[in-house]
Amino acid sequence: MAVVNKQSKKIPPSNYAIGVFDSGLGGLTVVKELIKLLPDEDIVYFGDTARVPYGTKSSESIIRFSIDNANVLISKKVKMIVVACNSSSSYALEVLKEKFDIPIVGVIDPGAQKAIRLTKNKKIGVIATSATVDSGKYVEALKNIDKSVKVTSVACPLFVPLVEEGWSNKKITADVAGIYLKLLKKENVDALILGCTHYPLLKTVISKVMGRKVALVDSAREVAHQVEKLLDQRKNRKRSKQKGALRIFVSDKPQSFMRIAKSFLGCKIDEISCLKKL
Amino acid sequence: MAVVNKQSKKIPPSNYAIGVFDSGLGGLTVVKELIKLLPDEDIVYFGDTARVPYGTKSSESIIRFSIDNANVLISKKVKMIVVACNSSSSYALEVLKEKFDIPIVGVIDPGAQKAIRLTKNKKIGVIATSATVDSGKYVEALKNIDKSVKVTSVACPLFVPLVEEGWSNKKITADVAGIYLKLLKKENVDALILGCTHYPLLKTVISKVMGRKVALVDSAREVAHQVEKLLDQRKNRKRSKQKGALRIFVSDKPQSFMRIAKSFLGCKIDEISCLKKL
Repeated sequence: MAVVNKQSKKIPPSNYAIGVFDSGLGGLTVVKELIKLLPDEDIVYFGDTARVPYGTKSSESIIRFSIDNANVLISKKVKMIVVACNSSSSYALEVLKEKFDIPIVGVIDPGAQKAIRLTKNKKIGVIATSATVDSGKYVEALKNIDKSVKVTSVACPLFVPLVEEGWSNKKITADVAGIYLKLLKKENVDALILGCTHYPLLKTVISKVMGRKVALVDSAREVAHQVEKLLDQRKNRKRSKQKGALRIFVSDKPQSFMRIAKSFLGCKIDEISCLKKL
Repeated sequence: MAVVNKQSKKIPPSNYAIGVFDSGLGGLTVVKELIKLLPDEDIVYFGDTARVPYGTKSSESIIRFSIDNANVLISKKVKMIVVACNSSSSYALEVLKEKFDIPIVGVIDPGAQKAIRLTKNKKIGVIATSATVDSGKYVEALKNIDKSVKVTSVACPLFVPLVEEGWSNKKITADVAGIYLKLLKKENVDALILGCTHYPLLKTVISKVMGRKVALVDSAREVAHQVEKLLDQRKNRKRSKQKGALRIFVSDKPQSFMRIAKSFLGCKIDEISCLKKL
């Protein structure tokens, strides 16, 4: 699996930050894992909160938005870009790798690798936005590793608004999960990829519906490990005894912003700025 | 109530179209009423489907998006602009009236007028997006007409995704409505403003929860009447025996587009184009 693009032979300064973008704030779950694993690295996060969600939009729009987001991060001096958004990773990864000369890391391959390691009966489920499911990228990534796995994918468009409404623990959410996950239970999957950055916040309710024996695959930690490996390979780690800084940029800052950011991250933020022009 | 802006003394050619914009496709409910009332007029609709929804975003973004949308319509030669989106009507109406020299018609005042006519006990409810509720514009418009009315407003962020998922008639939607409408039932409102263009598609379930005696106020027809009145006042009606054309422009055309457009409009569309650059 090639995560390094062909053009990324030039190594940026190691004190440049790790760039992360997402359609909104969900990608902060990836930031949390990066901070745990690489505490001395600086991180620049960009959330396209003015155009969120991506998961209901067309591939053309998702690609266009992703290029805009990568350009924002490049302007903030980053040494690599983590595409935390599953919809962007599904449609825009190859375009971004062609277009930019720093490493681009997506979330699909790390999630697929972890699911393959966890499954015993070779029946894997994928839940994600409509865009991610329609792209077929998880199925492709899983089959690339092991052709014999059976993959069942289900789009769950209401999960994101339910999380953003703060209803993760309400009965309604369990009822919605019951409807969406019915087919996956019937198919007897034993590993379920949470293919959207919001879904880890629904782990409790999803686990209750699917049963304890089904492993829930959250790719955030996997992605952080891949970033670490890549930085080591490229001898591009920032070596410092100081804790790295986290800077967050968004394209819109609605009223619910801080509540949602807090539920995803739960740690100190050094700077938050809103870029109005995107 | 001044719907004509100060600068709109210059009358555009009467064969110019009526422009309508919305954050997405919900505004087609207004188009439907315009076609019924003014069948010979041409209509140009713009839905900002690439940045939908507006109702969870900041007032600054809503204003910026609304100006973009009005400029798209102006470029298509329109003689007036109907702001079908409640969030845009709440935050951007005054800015648009300042900025453009054709009449701008919003949905808040027509909805408020109708609710005041329908209420008997002077207790009026408003359900809308978070942005519209937070703006307080419905309360302001209602109190401007009758200071003595009591207004209760509730944001219902899950209604739009439920409609777009095609779940309008599912039990889940009734359960969600039960939660959102609880306070309005307690307050004993007898007129309820459906303050979002998606909500008329939930009339059945909302009516079931609120009870038959509560009048549901859908401003689409009211807005169409205001457009007619304004065109007559300005002697700006297109007089033709031919049926007017409907042209629809969107900023993104996701896979679910046609299904959603059909459920809102249910009539012939002469042209649909996707403008990618917005």
